This record gives sequence, structure tokens and C-alpha cells, in this order.
Amino acid sequence: MAGKVVRNIARADPGVIDALASAGVATVHEAQGRTGLLAHYMRPIYSGARIAGSALTISAPPGDNWMIHVAIEQLREGDILVLAPTSPCFDGYFGDLLATSAIARGCRGLVIDAGVRDVRDLTAMVFPVWSRAVSAQGTVKATLGSVNVPIICAGALIEAGDVVVADDDGVCVVRREDAAAILEKAQVREAAEESKRKRLAAGELGLDIYDMRGKLEAMGLKYV
Amino acid sequence: MAGKVVRNIARADPGVIDALASAGVATVHEAQGRTGLLAHYMRPIYSGARIAGSALTISAPPGDNWMIHVAIEQLREGDILVLAPTSPCFDGYFGDLLATSAIARGCRGLVIDAGVRDVRDLTAMVFPVWSRAVSAQGTVKATLGSVNVPIICAGALIEAGDVVVADDDGVCVVRREDAAAILEKAQVREAAEESKRKRLAAGELGLDIYDMRGKLEAMGLKYV
Amino acid sequence: MAGKVVRNIARADPGVIDALASAGVATVHEAQGRTGLLAHYMRPIYSGARIAGSALTISAPPGDNWMIHVAIEQLREGDILVLAPTSPCFDGYFGDLLATSAIARGCRGLVIDAGVRDVRDLTAMVFPVWSRAVSAQGTVKATLGSVNVPIICAGALIEAGDVVVADDDGVCVVRREDAAAILEKAQVREAAEESKRKRLAAGELGLDIYDMRGKLEAMGLKYV
Amino acid sequence: MAGKVVRNIARADPGVIDALASAGVATVHEAQGRTGLLAHYMRPIYSGARIAGSALTISAPPGDNWMIHVAIEQLREGDILVLAPTSPCFDGYFGDLLATSAIARGCRGLVIDAGVRDVRDLTAMVFPVWSRAVSAQGTVKATLGSVNVPIICAGALIEAGDVVVADDDGVCVVRREDAAAILEKAQVREAAEESKRKRLAAGELGLDIYDMRGKLEAMGLKYV
Amino acid sequence: MAGKVVRNIARADPGVIDALASAGVATVHEAQGRTGLLAHYMRPIYSGARIAGSALTISAPPGDNWMIHVAIEQLREGDILVLAPTSPCFDGYFGDLLATSAIARGCRGLVIDAGVRDVRDLTAMVFPVWSRAVSAQGTVKATLGSVNVPIICAGALIEAGDVVVADDDGVCVVRREDAAAILEKAQVREAAEESKRKRLAAGELGLDIYDMRGKLEAMGLKYV
Amino acid sequence: MAGKVVRNIARADPGVIDALASAGVATVHEAQGRTGLLAHYMRPIYSGARIAGSALTISAPPGDNWMIHVAIEQLREGDILVLAPTSPCFDGYFGDLLATSAIARGCRGLVIDAGVRDVRDLTAMVFPVWSRAVSAQGTVKATLGSVNVPIICAGALIEAGDVVVADDDGVCVVRREDAAAILEKAQVREAAEESKRKRLAAGELGLDIYDMRGKLEAMGLKYV
Repeated sequence: MAGKVVRNIARADPGVIDALASAGVATVHEAQGRTGLLAHYMRPIYSGARIAGSALTISAPPGDNWMIHVAIEQLREGDILVLAPTSPCFDGYFGDLLATSAIARGCRGLVIDAGVRDVRDLTAMVFPVWSRAVSAQGTVKATLGSVNVPIICAGALIEAGDVVVADDDGVCVVRREDAAAILEKAQVREAAEESKRKRLAAGELGLDIYDMRGKLEAMGLKYV
Repeated sequence: MAGKVVRNIARADPGVIDALASAGVATVHEAQGRTGLLAHYMRPIYSGARIAGSALTISAPPGDNWMIHVAIEQLREGDILVLAPTSPCFDGYFGDLLATSAIARGCRGLVIDAGVRDVRDLTAMVFPVWSRAVSAQGTVKATLGSVNVPIICAGALIEAGDVVVADDDGVCVVRREDAAAILEKAQVREAAEESKRKRLAAGELGLDIYDMRGKLEAMGLKYV
Repeated sequence: MAGKVVRNIARADPGVIDALASAGVATVHEAQGRTGLLAHYMRPIYSGARIAGSALTISAPPGDNWMIHVAIEQLREGDILVLAPTSPCFDGYFGDLLATSAIARGCRGLVIDAGVRDVRDLTAMVFPVWSRAVSAQGTVKATLGSVNVPIICAGALIEAGDVVVADDDGVCVVRREDAAAILEKAQVREAAEESKRKRLAAGELGLDIYDMRGKLEAMGLKYV
Repeated sequence: MAGKVVRNIARADPGVIDALASAGVATVHEAQGRTGLLAHYMRPIYSGARIAGSALTISAPPGDNWMIHVAIEQLREGDILVLAPTSPCFDGYFGDLLATSAIARGCRGLVIDAGVRDVRDLTAMVFPVWSRAVSAQGTVKATLGSVNVPIICAGALIEAGDVVVADDDGVCVVRREDAAAILEKAQVREAAEESKRKRLAAGELGLDIYDMRGKLEAMGLKYV
Repeated sequence: MAGKVVRNIARADPGVIDALASAGVATVHEAQGRTGLLAHYMRPIYSGARIAGSALTISAPPGDNWMIHVAIEQLREGDILVLAPTSPCFDGYFGDLLATSAIARGCRGLVIDAGVRDVRDLTAMVFPVWSRAVSAQGTVKATLGSVNVPIICAGALIEAGDVVVADDDGVCVVRREDAAAILEKAQVREAAEESKRKRLAAGELGLDIYDMRGKLEAMGLKYV
Repeated sequence: MAGKVVRNIARADPGVIDALASAGVATVHEAQGRTGLLAHYMRPIYSGARIAGSALTISAPPGDNWMIHVAIEQLREGDILVLAPTSPCFDGYFGDLLATSAIARGCRGLVIDAGVRDVRDLTAMVFPVWSRAVSAQGTVKATLGSVNVPIICAGALIEAGDVVVADDDGVCVVRREDAAAILEKAQVREAAEESKRKRLAAGELGLDIYDMRGKLEAMGLKYV
């Protein structure tokens, strides 16, 4: 089944993608009914990055990064490389040379359910990566994988062209065709949060703002 | 058994609590006979925070953060929220809205044997958190837990009003009634360390300062 | 078998050691045929450190740091302490007092397949540590281990006097007698990378630079 | 998004399903290009079971087994319950009462990316389960999930009606529409293996049977 | 704090203890409000054992089994040894010689949040053990711990004389003073389950037996 | 560095090897000063096997089992295949066909720091395996490794021809040249244990047999 590169993929609207980055992972995840989150072991190599982009997906054998070279040719401005190994692997598939190449093709970052290396250089280049591990372990170029096929990355299904949102809280995926609708929900949510933030900062309690006391009492909560 | 909120809890002396923060986790842990440490997987969301406070304990079901709202009403100036899920959970129980509310009630930080989210905002707010995970995974408000009951958090027994000390080394709990005595031992220990630090910095060896050579030889250590 | 301290160990050439630090872990690991890397769970306590030094090895029982005192006496300028527990352990074997002593003897850092504490102080002292865990858990001084015997640390065999290279990507060991040869290979590799970096930055593809298209086609890669 | 039960799902041909069970997980996984395998942490509660059936999928909140009751009503003869929690959970969602009910509706077994309990009873009932954990931890019935929607279970995408194959090696999923084709490939593979097994048992080497010597030499393998 | 042996401990009624064993871990855990369960990583070395007994608690340093010898002297007929290391440890603290000694003193089994060895012999002796690991790693006898003090074992607080129940589902602790009351609840629960089991076996649905349809509909469950 | 097959290796005396199997892992490990044990995650696929043999070592890339075919040609009667991947891997490198071939060449079993599959067949064939995982995940044959070079397997250094001992407690390695000496120590140890076993079974305490009371008192143990 491996050995396939899909060349032309649809992407979401650039303005929608950028607005999803601003909304952030937690809000986007809530806006789509608490779905789409990648496993919490996916951590950024440095703090503060906040990006969204179109997923360019890579399915790669364990310890083999050949398909990243193939994928880079398919990059378009605003894409994010998203790699899932075909079995659990912590090797360092990606380093500063590949990042140099990816940046030259307009890539915004990397999401990889495996390892990454040269993290000092990547940080200096301000190329954000969310990975399962940091590892200098080298890889080979011997076996085919696929590019732009659906993958399961860190427990989430990601299809080529889906919108990937990533920040210090982790990584979330939004189906390409739902991106605009989810953005709308995210923005409604953000607006609602803003007013609640003010009330909470002033000392009001969530118990009152969300009107929880009656339900808690009905369920039997006892104060002693 | 769940569904109980204890309203009035005793707390340790504020001066003692603050002095325990200065002593730090490693020293306090040693001062009480190497006990009270939470599991090492409890890590701060940012470096450099060093706090102590009275534990306001929360026992919560997996994936359900309802009790945090209940707990926030019970906060007093100088408290630290301490949450243990009733079974292992990595979800993001707590984010910037709850932090806003907690800060408004005088809360100094959060210790949670589960996940936390909005970590960029929490960092900007200088609200320290020690957690098992960072995760944007949302939670529900459907099932009762308890507040200010004894909990096992990350392998340590914590009772409401106990003193929780937390810094870059992790988290340690001190029984409320022992706080003053432990502080005294911690300060004795710190003073002793200060003089040793100078001797070690000058090149003296621990082997000599602690008079270890004889015992090592008696146990059979061979130099070759 | 425990209870042995080897006093005189051979060390590699200081200039070679320092040059290996500049090459960095990923390059050195590649230069020696993708061998010598310690497990990826070995992480630095702060970012940005990049060191190499001669391994002063310590085999220690779980939860017992006595041998570190013994080892410190054997330190020479430019050494790195490398500790492996005899069974898995996460306790905090090492803190600021031991670091003070080690620095006074010329030690460049610590690599420990266990825990470390006082990480705020160690960071302030600019004493780099790569460890499996950060933990305040105290240790005892009751059972003998050995110093400067071969150890398996985080999955890698390390002999006293081997060169240990460590940076943000992890830790790699180079056999003492191979150090000069590996450095040469690393430098050849670095030079080759430099020219590739420029071509990649200019938008050339790895597919072309490394002439991969023919082989990929021969193996059956399909573009659709 | 939660709160949906899909009532009518298509299922694969019963004869094909049973033949896939006979082929076994390893062969089926190879026959479909080394895809479809669930994570290796999915282990049987007892050895020797070997089943296949139509997936009746359940998406459930952490620590909440309400949807299993909903799912059991949808069971048809030959189905396998397949549950994925919406965030990582090890609780015991399923025990002997639910098994009694499931068996009465024709269920062949359970695949659950969480915990199971009453394993002694389940073993006595010869009701096979593949799970991530054995845990007596009880669950609640408070929050909706969904039944017969696509789920990611232990890293694999499973849709309602897909064929799930499980034995001592783990669990593999076959797309419903591919089941007959994959069976054919599996049977070709089994036949080929049978002849190889005889030759290998007679002492012939894989190096010769698969004609590997030339390629190994060409790649540079050296015998010393 | 270490270095204490409490000699006289209260124990629960032997008849109550034995009846709790018959009820089993899952039922007892439910009967006491879903509390008291040890972490699910505690697994039996062989299947089918089902015991209850009075906890004789041991707090031991990592890699040091000295206190087990001290504890064995304190054993009374019907006791279960329960050991928690003071920091995480997987070493084999206990083997066939200690089991021989424990059996001679009336011990019913071992619950250990660490490793055990000689498991073939222990199985042949029908001495049940629930442990975190099987490991031949030997331990020393160099540092004091304590016997019959409160311990946190695999995430649960256990006091000397508490009733420990263990079977294939794991291990649960019941406060000594609550044992009779919990037994009563467990037996009520068992009786109720028996009638439900029959109805479920006859094909009735939990949805109907527990009258769930209305609540599910009210919460918005949709059948499509 | 990979790509080497060492053809002629020395092996220990067959009688010594078989006697080490009888002594068992725990005793052999103690006899050599508590060294040589592989990590406790190495578990047998079925209970009750107890073997020893000469290590035929394999260093293999992650997800690539090509070298096993190469290794099988080098097998001699009484050997045990010992495989370490060059980076962490859980894939199923070995199944019933390879076992058929290995058995035909006199192989006694497999020790693999990765995954194994076809475990039902292997069990039926009475071919024992100690592995890190059971996984049906298939592997490729694309990249060279080495045979009969020193490897680190599950944290232990193993050289070709070393004696590997394995039973239900795990796996231990004995240097080839030390095998006879270690056997002698193991047998002394076994004899000593036999007499102790009788005394312990008769109710004598380890505290008295090993004369521990004085030392415990001197260290400050208090009975209360």
C-alpha cells in the first residue's frame, strides 16, 4: 500500500487558517466538540510558537526519513509537514538541513509522532516543531512510504489539506471542509470567554456565572 | 463517598509557610526525613517559580473539572489548589479562565496530577502550575467529587490545610501540624549547608568533610 | 564485583575533545556510523549547553549516592561525571553541593541515568546536567559501587576516559581511542553539510542534490 | 459532536469474516500491506482466543461506560464491541454483567482501548477481551458518547462494520469493503508459507529460499 | 522517620476478611464508593488466586529488602505482606526463601509496589503475589525502613491491619474499621447482581432494566 | 559500522551451560555479584521455560529483520538468538517461519529487545522467546545490520558466545570466560539456600539465621 505521492491536494482558505492559529488549540478543540486533539505527548521544542497550516502528510517506515525529501517537493506556502511512522519510533527523522529546505519552500513547521534533532539550530531558525521526542538517532533512506495519504498521527486522523493548529498546549486538527465553520464557533467562544474573564477577575464565581448551585445541590453535594 | 465539601479547614502560620517556600523542596523533603515528595512526573509549566501555600484539596472524576468551580469558592489568600483525579487522567482540567478566578480569590498556584491547558496564558499571568501533563483536552461537568477531603496526589497523601511547597525540583507536602518544626529543621540544614558549600568550593572533598574514608575502607572499597 | 575505584585512566587529547563539542551530538553520532547515542530520555536541565569531556564513570546502587563523593576525588580538569544506577532509579543523586565540589575539581557537567535536584541552583551555576529525571528524592550513603569501571548508561556502554559529547539533542559517547578519527569524519561531514545547506536554502531539492529520483522510481514510487 | 447512535450498519460476508479469523492477525496484517494493526499494548485477557467479527464501535468519555449499554442493543450475531475512550483511560468499563448481556445478543468479544474487570469470570465464560489494562476501577453513567461512528482505537481507524480480527498477536482491522480481497491475499500468503515452512524445517536457509545472498553482498555485507 | 516497627496492630474479624475475599476486588471497590483500588499496574504472578488478609505494611528503601525479614517476625496467621518502596523501584525484593519463611508464619500472600523473583517457585508453592514487576534484580540489606506504619502503596493509603483484597482484577484496600460495613454492602450488591445477571442472560437490555432510555433521550441522544 | 558477520565464535562448555540453566536466572545473577541482568521488561511469551545457551548476537535496524536470516546460517546446536535493535522498536521481527528455520539449526530460543509474533504457534512449537513486546507488526529487509558483534540488549552488554540464561524471572548474561567460575558460585549458593530453606520452613526467622538483630538495633531500629 505504501509508495504513493498525491500531488494536488485541496487546502482551506488562508485567512481562515491564520485566524484558527490566533484562536489557539484549546479553543479550536472545544469549538469542534472536543475532538481532533493529538496525544498530549506531542510537545513543542521551544515555547511560544503558535501556528496553523495545511497538513502535508507523510507516512514513513520506522527509522527511515526518505519520504520527507519527497514531501518537501510538494510543499506550498503555508503548509505544515505532518509525519506518522508506521510503527512506534523515536528516531530523529528531521534536522536543520531538512528545515532549511522546508523553509525555502514555504513550510511553517513540523508535527512529527517521532523524534527530531538539531533542536538548537531549529530554535535559532525559529522553525517550530511538535514532536514525541528529541533524539539525535539517525535514520536511513531505504524503504518507501507515502505522501498526502490519510495518516493516524499521535492518535488523530489527519488527511492532506486538513488544517493543523499548534501551540504550547499541543496540536489539533480541523477537517479542511469544516475549517470556516469551526473558526466561527471558535470566535463565538472567544467572545463569550472575554466577558466571563472580566467577571471572574472581579471576583464573581463560576458557581454563579454558570448557575451551578442548584444542579450541584440536586445531585447531592453536601457542605460540612 | 464523593460529594462532600469541607468548608472550614485549619491552615498553618503564614510566616512559616512563606519560610518553607524559601527553603525549597529538596531541603524541606530532607528536613522531614525524606518523606512527603510527590512523584517526579509532576513538572512546572515554566521554570523559576518557588511557592508554598495551604492545600485546598480536590478529588475529581477523570475528565470532569466541575469540582474546581466548587473549590474556588473555598479559596483563602495564600492557598494552593491541589487536584487528584480518582483514576489516572491526563486531560486539561484547568486553563486561563479558572486561573483568573482563582487569582481573584488569592490562590498562589495549582498542583494537579492530571493535565493543564492555556499554558502560554498561565505563564503570562505568572500563575504557576505543577502538573503531570500539558493537554488541551476538554473536560465535562457531570459527576460529583469532593473538596477538602484527604487525597492521594501523585503518590503522596495530602490533607486540606497541609503545606504544599513547590519549585523547579517538584512538589513536597508538609503536615500542617508539623510545619513549624520542619521549618526549623530545614533552616538548621540550610545553615549547615552554607558552611559546607564554602569548603567544597575551596576544593575540600566530601570524603574528608564527612569523614567517609574509614568507613569506605572498612566496607572494602579498593583503589587500583 | 562492586567496590572498586580505578585511579589512573587514560584520556583523549583535549583539543580533540573540545572540537567534538563544537561538532555536536548529531554530527558525532553520524560520523561514527550512527552508534554511541544514549537513550532519548536523557534530557538537559536547561537549554543551550554544549559540552564534551572525558567520562569519569560511576556505578551506583539505586538510591545511594555515596560513590559520587568517591568519584569527585578522581576528577581532572575537563572530566564529565557519568553515573549509571545498577537498577532503574529516578532519585535525586546530585544537587548544588556536589556540583560546587565537582566544579572546584574542574568538572564540566554530569550525565546521569537517574534523577538530579537543585536544578534552579545548578542552572544559576551554569553547571549542565543531562538526566533521566528531575527529582528532589534524597539518597543514602550505605552501599558500595565502583568508579571508573565500564558502565551501561542509558543503553550505551561507556568506559572511563571515553569522550562524552552532550547538547540539546542528547548525549553521545565516543571511544577514547577513536576520538581523533571520529572528529575527522565529523568535520568532513560538517563541511559537506555547509554546502548543502546553501543549496537547500536557495530552493534546490534534496531529491536532486542527492540524486534520489531514479532510485525512488525504480522502487515503485507513484505520483498521482 | 457526541450523542449519536447509528442503527443500521453494513457488515461483511460472514464466511469471509470467519475465514479471516482462521488466517490470524499477523497474516491478515501482512496481506493488507502491513496496515491496520492496533497498538501492541492491546493484550488478550487469556491466551488462545482467535476471533473475527463486525465492529460495533463505541466512543465513550473517560471513566463513563454508559454507551456500552446503548451499544449492546445494536449488537447482531457475530459482532465485536470496539471501544475507544475520548481521552486516555485505564478504568474498568466492562465486566461480567455486561458480558452476559453482550453474549445474549450474539457478541463474540470486546476490543477496548481502556480497562476491563471481572477477568476471572470473563475467562470462565470464554468471552475474549483485548484491552489496554485490567482494572477494577468503576465507571459512571453521566455523559453521552456515540455508537457506530468512526473511532481511533489504539492508533487504528475503525468504522462500524469493519472486520476486526484478534488473536494472541493482537488486533487488526480490515475495511469492510476490502474484506474479501484481503482474505484472498491472506490465503495466497498462507499457502506460500506452508511450502516454505517445509523447506525451512528440512534445514534449507531463508538466505537461499529467498535468494538474498547476492543483494546482501551488493550492499556490502562482510563475513569475517 | 524510618526505623520503626509497630508490634501490636488491630486486625479485622477473620470471618469478615474471608467473606471479602469471596466478594472479590471489583465488588468490594464498588461497595465502598469506588475507592481503595491500587494502581492497575499491580498484576498477579499467576491467574486464579483470590485472597484477603490483614495488611502487615512495610516501608522499604529502593533496592533494600532488609525490612522484610523484620516484618516476617510480626506476621500472624492470615496476614498479607504489603510493601511500598520509598521511591520507585522494580528490583526483586522477594523470592522463594522469603516465601518459605512467610508461609511458615501464616502469611497468605504478598502485595508489592516493586519487583518479585523466583516466580516459578512461588507459583509451585501456591504463594500468590501482586507486583509491579517481575525482576531477578537482587537487593541489599543496608538501610532501615519501617514496619506497620501507614504507607502509600501503588497510589493507595494502607494502614497496618487494613484488609487487603486481591484477585485477578487487582488489589483493593478496606479500612479495618469499615470492613464489616463494606462487606454488608458488597453482599447486597452481589445479590442484586445475581438477579440482573439472569435477566441479562435472558436477553433483557440494561437500557430497560436500569430504565435509562428517558434520561438518554433527555440528554439528547439521537438514533439515526 | 554495520554490515559485518563474525563467523567463528568461541562458546562455553556445553555442560556448564546446561548447569547454568538449572541454576536459574536469580541464582546466576546473584552468583556474579548482581550483574548481568537484562531489563525487567523482557518477558517470556509462555511460562515455565528455563534455558541457557550461547549467544548468537544480532544488531538490527528498527523494523528490519533481514539480519535474522543471516544469523540463522551461523547457528550451532545449543545457541540462542539475541537481537537488539539499533533504536527502540516494538515491531514483530520474528515469527513461526523463522522459528522453524532456527529450530532446524539447533537453536534453543530467542531473546529480543523488540517484538515477536505468531506467539500461539511458537508456544505450540515449544520455542521459548523473551521479548519486550508481542506485536504482529511486520518488518522489511532493506538495511544491513551485523551478526556476532557486541550488542547492548535491554541494558546489558552481550558478546557473541556469552552464555544467556533465561527463565520466568527474566534473562541474565554470563561472560563466556567466566561461565565455569560463575557456575561454581551458583552451586555453592544453591547448596547454602537449601539448608536455609529447611530452617525457614520450620519457622526459624531470617533475623536469627542471618544474625541481623544486633546490627538492626545498632542502626537504631525501634520496636514500639
